[in-house]
Amino acid sequence: MQVYLNGSFVDHNEAKVSVADRGFIFGDGIYEVTRVVNGSLFREKEHLVRMDQGLKSLKIDLDDSVRNAIPEISRELLEKNNLLDGEAAIYLQITRGTAWPRTHTFPNPAVKPSIYLSVSEFSPHTELHKTGVDVITLADVRWTRCNIKTVQLLPNTLARQQAIEHGVNSALMIRDGVITESPNANIFGVKDGALYTYPESNYILSGITRGAVLEIAEKLDIPVHFNPIREEELFELDELFFSGTTTDIQPVTVVNGKNLGTGKPGPIVKSIQDEYRKLLYG
Amino acid sequence: MQVYLNGSFVDHNEAKVSVADRGFIFGDGIYEVTRVVNGSLFREKEHLVRMDQGLKSLKIDLDDSVRNAIPEISRELLEKNNLLDGEAAIYLQITRGTAWPRTHTFPNPAVKPSIYLSVSEFSPHTELHKTGVDVITLADVRWTRCNIKTVQLLPNTLARQQAIEHGVNSALMIRDGVITESPNANIFGVKDGALYTYPESNYILSGITRGAVLEIAEKLDIPVHFNPIREEELFELDELFFSGTTTDIQPVTVVNGKNLGTGKPGPIVKSIQDEYRKLLYG
Repeated sequence: MQVYLNGSFVDHNEAKVSVADRGFIFGDGIYEVTRVVNGSLFREKEHLVRMDQGLKSLKIDLDDSVRNAIPEISRELLEKNNLLDGEAAIYLQITRGTAWPRTHTFPNPAVKPSIYLSVSEFSPHTELHKTGVDVITLADVRWTRCNIKTVQLLPNTLARQQAIEHGVNSALMIRDGVITESPNANIFGVKDGALYTYPESNYILSGITRGAVLEIAEKLDIPVHFNPIREEELFELDELFFSGTTTDIQPVTVVNGKNLGTGKPGPIVKSIQDEYRKLLYG
Repeated sequence: MQVYLNGSFVDHNEAKVSVADRGFIFGDGIYEVTRVVNGSLFREKEHLVRMDQGLKSLKIDLDDSVRNAIPEISRELLEKNNLLDGEAAIYLQITRGTAWPRTHTFPNPAVKPSIYLSVSEFSPHTELHKTGVDVITLADVRWTRCNIKTVQLLPNTLARQQAIEHGVNSALMIRDGVITESPNANIFGVKDGALYTYPESNYILSGITRGAVLEIAEKLDIPVHFNPIREEELFELDELFFSGTTTDIQPVTVVNGKNLGTGKPGPIVKSIQDEYRKLLYG
């Protein structure tokens, strides 16, 4: 697989960053994952806008020339890896760059940010989208700047791993008694035909797929309440689902071993899945 | 400068890890920084014990042969870099290793952890230890597993940077109304001859230097209260100081532009500095 790293296309086995890269030493960087259908990047502009916001939040100054080349690099990468047909995902990571010696404060003068892109074939979890998935609840132990899509992902990996070791697909993360996110997706509840979701804040990521769900809700005249779901209200919900780039629109049917709603994907999530497929596949 | 990476000693400019290293992608790893005086690693055993605890917490399985070679690698590294005389610091980082393709869950079967060590000359901040430093207060936005010494350090770097941009040396981080840590040190308050410090918990790192301060307090018959310092009580303290491997024992004399105590290092911190120097330099 060919990847892009700091100006060059190289085999992924050859793509290496310095041990002094602040991505490696401090987790000092941001990332994006974008869905690709037949060579078209889904919501590419939105991903780039969020990337820019992330870089700005971290005060990482990316050259305009590099910034503006990202769409072309993405396309070239798809081409080089024969992924212009069918589905794919593009991973983009930008860190503050390599700075020696190690020091917490930003390098001064600033160094060139590291930029890495890779692509992979992508298969949507079609079967799970039909059956729904089971999850456990876990404490949300992440930092409180979850609105920035950084590589500070150790808590997310630990939560997902804990879920897998528990024999389930994923987790609902709980902070201060309310559900925030899964380790890699936003969360929507459905009650009496309306959606409930955590409001935009520093406790959740403003997901691109979440944004698509909100658009779909508007189109379908489904009311949306930007109220977090309290843990104790979970089983009063009719439906629950995840939204995320690779998660897609994913019904959650079992929580902590207990059916949520009917224990099967409900009518609202199905109608949102249908509309989302139209957006994705045209 | 020669560094050690996965079995080899190489120039630091040549030391590179894969872009698929989970340290780079997820911040999935731990680190230690150890002080060295004339070739002797200060509290080496304690650092290795904490390293083992960190690896265990993250379920990173390091081969015994690699684990047991770390003291020898450290010594060899000091020798190769002519740092057996005077003061130095050793940086050690271990990540879960390189796993392709990217997936949140741990690689299964497990891959070989990446292990990286570097050394640098070290100069204690002798002048600042005499004068004290000024700090600002900032929100502690870190995750809630601060007891594990992971490379999830973006919040720490942002806090330190914010302090520097504010024209001060460092910061007191506040969570739930109490002072937890600085971006890279533990914190002690002094009131009426007694020490106050955050109790061991998941909100602070159990610092090796913090442990030395507790030993010194016992030796000097200074009572220690394991109570966090409330933000509103800050200026009722007589003294305040940091403890940390590279921070050493560092008086904090000005907070948010206002003198704390007399605005000069007090007698308790000075007596602890004296004892700490005896431990370090024998």
